[in-house]
Amino acid sequence: MKFRAAIVTLFLAMLATSTVSADDALPSWNDGASKSAIIEFVQAVTDKTGSRYVPPEDRIATFDNDGTLWPSHPTYAQLAFAMDRIKTLAPKHPKWKTKQPFKAVLDNDLKALAAAGEHGLVELVMASHAGMSTAEFETIVTDWFAKARHPRFKRRYTELAYQPMLELLAFLRANAFKTFIVSGGGVEFMRPITQVVYGIPPEQVVGSTIKTRYEVQNGKPVLMRLPEIDFIDDKTGKPIGINKFIGRRPIAAFGNSAGDREMLQWTGAGNGPRLMMLVFHDDSKREYAYGPAEGLPDTKFGTFPASLMKEANQQGWVVISMKKEWARIFAFEK
Amino acid sequence: MKFRAAIVTLFLAMLATSTVSADDALPSWNDGASKSAIIEFVQAVTDKTGSRYVPPEDRIATFDNDGTLWPSHPTYAQLAFAMDRIKTLAPKHPKWKTKQPFKAVLDNDLKALAAAGEHGLVELVMASHAGMSTAEFETIVTDWFAKARHPRFKRRYTELAYQPMLELLAFLRANAFKTFIVSGGGVEFMRPITQVVYGIPPEQVVGSTIKTRYEVQNGKPVLMRLPEIDFIDDKTGKPIGINKFIGRRPIAAFGNSAGDREMLQWTGAGNGPRLMMLVFHDDSKREYAYGPAEGLPDTKFGTFPASLMKEANQQGWVVISMKKEWARIFAFEK
Repeated sequence: MKFRAAIVTLFLAMLATSTVSADDALPSWNDGASKSAIIEFVQAVTDKTGSRYVPPEDRIATFDNDGTLWPSHPTYAQLAFAMDRIKTLAPKHPKWKTKQPFKAVLDNDLKALAAAGEHGLVELVMASHAGMSTAEFETIVTDWFAKARHPRFKRRYTELAYQPMLELLAFLRANAFKTFIVSGGGVEFMRPITQVVYGIPPEQVVGSTIKTRYEVQNGKPVLMRLPEIDFIDDKTGKPIGINKFIGRRPIAAFGNSAGDREMLQWTGAGNGPRLMMLVFHDDSKREYAYGPAEGLPDTKFGTFPASLMKEANQQGWVVISMKKEWARIFAFEK
Repeated sequence: MKFRAAIVTLFLAMLATSTVSADDALPSWNDGASKSAIIEFVQAVTDKTGSRYVPPEDRIATFDNDGTLWPSHPTYAQLAFAMDRIKTLAPKHPKWKTKQPFKAVLDNDLKALAAAGEHGLVELVMASHAGMSTAEFETIVTDWFAKARHPRFKRRYTELAYQPMLELLAFLRANAFKTFIVSGGGVEFMRPITQVVYGIPPEQVVGSTIKTRYEVQNGKPVLMRLPEIDFIDDKTGKPIGINKFIGRRPIAAFGNSAGDREMLQWTGAGNGPRLMMLVFHDDSKREYAYGPAEGLPDTKFGTFPASLMKEANQQGWVVISMKKEWARIFAFEK
């Protein structure tokens, strides 16, 4: 029977020359509720004869980045970048040795940094992300990504994209979806690497922004990055950012934390078929485990409260258990 | 020798079955400097064997809207929309009868309106474009475009797209360019019609924005439009908007007025082949004629000063004479 089943499978695979086979397209997903939900949704919206068909131009899918497409622990990649940059700049700022949140950075004190709260983080971003042209910033970011290593995995951050999510992105695009990142992270921090890592071009990256000023220096125009927040693309900022940058409502949205709640609400409130999913980090062995939903420890970097789990269950948002549903997490695993 | 050259050309043309013939693609352009510049540029950046080849993902082209893709006279379509909307709302605002700039609108007094300046225009936009959800605004805009007629041409505004520019947009896209609108106009005023009129999807429209607020009304999330300017996508705002929304520098940019100067400067300052063009309105018979460059009358709606003509000549920006270079302007002409 096994042999016969294999022959049938082979025959069916040969028939399906024009469509991407979901089984082939999602090899890092174990069979389960999440994989089934993805395949069922994509089949429904691409079936021209079905009642749930969605034309290609409306197949917009939005993805949070930190914690959804790559790790957000022990801290956000962008915060690690800001800390490295503060250390580089510190010799020119002797007062930082005694002034928070800079002292916390120089002492590698993540707890004191977390205690500095949002205001502290904004101060760090202003000091580390502004005062140069957009072109200079792109070079600084690109150089950092080439050099920096994740403290636990000892790999470049760009090697830490979740393999199952890379397969999901490719599977959606093979079915004529347009994939976007919608992240609380800085848009100019992400854009230099999203094409190579995720296959997502710069113009499909929505994120937080700081203000810039147009100047002509020595006859050449530059955009100078100012120490002033322009837009925070998090929580209610996500639907606002989606409306502002994309201008249409996604039919699928993927997140992992309380910061993604409103993006999923906004996506779900549209007419027609919808897919909303949340990556749940319950695998401390291969990656990280945090909640506080399901009794896991709380975190400052991508919190998943019990209220989010409750809303997911009520609204039919699919919660992905990394531990149970991902056969592997990183491409570098065997 | 001429015959032999013709045979070689014919042979090469037969080989190039996959590229669009420029002669067929731009029938509404008369032979001349502008048409030649377009064809030469597109051939250069798509020639894989040439030194000026640009990979498809970098073929970004940005277009101003008012005065570049459709008329901006006797006033901007969006100002006509705002005026109609103010008149609709006037019964609920009796004070508008005596208060500028509202009085000017109710009196159809374009001169007094122009005298109210930018501050007056902002007041009109706030009163006519805010206070409803984004979905409600989209319906209001769509209904207006279905009903409103241009005062001179007695046609829907959506019928007034310049035929040569529609051909140029299609020609660029046939050569793997991604075409964007980068307009001072409101992004949510343009998005309902850009796909149908220009073949440009909502996510490739950059424009001015007002702030929105995320609210849950009766269990359903909405984005409410607030009477507060978020971003003005004009003059230095154009490169800022391009950087913020698109995240890469265009290799081609098209405008028609002083508001497009910085977009063309920014485009021209990049490395590699570039094409910058300005539509010059010198055809009062078929459309409009205004400057003040070349001694034409000045205008509040898309001014083309002598300093812009000078910069165009110095920088090699191609100035398109509507009168001489466009065989027809509108699709509805014979």
